[in-house]
Amino acid sequence: MDIIQALNWRYATKKMTGQIVPKQTIDKIIAAAHLAPSGIGLQPYEIIVVSNPEWKEKILPVAMNQAQVIQSSHLFVFAAWQNYSLERINKVFDYLNEQRNQPASASDAHRNFAISYFGKMTEEEQFHHAAKQANIALGLAVAAAALEQVDATPMEGFNALALDELLGLQEKSLRSSMLLAIGYRDEENDWNLKLKKIRKPLTELVTELA
Amino acid sequence: MDIIQALNWRYATKKMTGQIVPKQTIDKIIAAAHLAPSGIGLQPYEIIVVSNPEWKEKILPVAMNQAQVIQSSHLFVFAAWQNYSLERINKVFDYLNEQRNQPASASDAHRNFAISYFGKMTEEEQFHHAAKQANIALGLAVAAAALEQVDATPMEGFNALALDELLGLQEKSLRSSMLLAIGYRDEENDWNLKLKKIRKPLTELVTELA
Repeated sequence: MDIIQALNWRYATKKMTGQIVPKQTIDKIIAAAHLAPSGIGLQPYEIIVVSNPEWKEKILPVAMNQAQVIQSSHLFVFAAWQNYSLERINKVFDYLNEQRNQPASASDAHRNFAISYFGKMTEEEQFHHAAKQANIALGLAVAAAALEQVDATPMEGFNALALDELLGLQEKSLRSSMLLAIGYRDEENDWNLKLKKIRKPLTELVTELA
Repeated sequence: MDIIQALNWRYATKKMTGQIVPKQTIDKIIAAAHLAPSGIGLQPYEIIVVSNPEWKEKILPVAMNQAQVIQSSHLFVFAAWQNYSLERINKVFDYLNEQRNQPASASDAHRNFAISYFGKMTEEEQFHHAAKQANIALGLAVAAAALEQVDATPMEGFNALALDELLGLQEKSLRSSMLLAIGYRDEENDWNLKLKKIRKPLTELVTELA
């Protein structure tokens, strides 16, 4: 299926059937997120994958009782780095050098740029930066899901502090940034499926510099 | 082409040939971004499309002289709303009601939620929120480009204030959030094409809650 067709097919699914998405398809959606580009290649986020109904029940009340939390097949919690610590930056470049079988000096310019770039930011700015990168990965996951005819609803209506606490994200220096409910639309009962899809006029999205 | 193959094919192109991407392909990449989901459907961003070489020359020095600015076919400047003003929020819901031929009350709950949700944020937080939404659209643009075998390099090494000034974004209450260089890789001369693609191990990206 063409990506534009797929993205027209997708919508913010509000009611899902609870049917399970095959593991192979979940793996593909995750693979797309895994291949996402990120600033200086740091991939400053993790994805907590929730398919266990007991966990979904615990998450439901901190996610404004949004039905997709429990009606999804898999709930992805995107969690961004709370900060770009020196340890984290060094780990990325040490791994890069190892994988490319190259001396440390080969990535020194990028490493030093990263340390200097993030060093000028407050921790709050660092988190916002990381969460922005996470959303590129989320975009790729949404695209991959739509191409597989699987529904994917990004959701941010949740109590981030409570969710972080529940999932123990603070101990990992992570902060939840976005939810992505993966599953199948309940065609008969989802009121949102019946509504016309609206996007602002293209002329209000795009300006071409002459 | 399969999206995973496409995303494996893509990489952060550092040298481009300057060859022009057909309009139809550019339109498709933009269509993907246009269909992106966003928080409460507000689409709080615009895309400035730069293909004029004179404009690229002006942008080059404020973008750390990154060669893709001038070697790209089209440079997309993603510009996020500086704030979620009442006017902007109202415009979205007025348009929605008009397009769906429904009374104002039909979207009141969402409208009021949006006003309350963003009303609790500082203007800086509102901008970060908007820029996060813009990155979902950027992710979809990257996916669409890869599927069309067109290179797309996200770039954030630029002086945002200077770029905003140059493009007159402040007058539109926009702030540049990300660049996306669209074009074709210079296969012979791009050092980055020859390097092994590295992503952190999948086990460090994904945690499954048992």
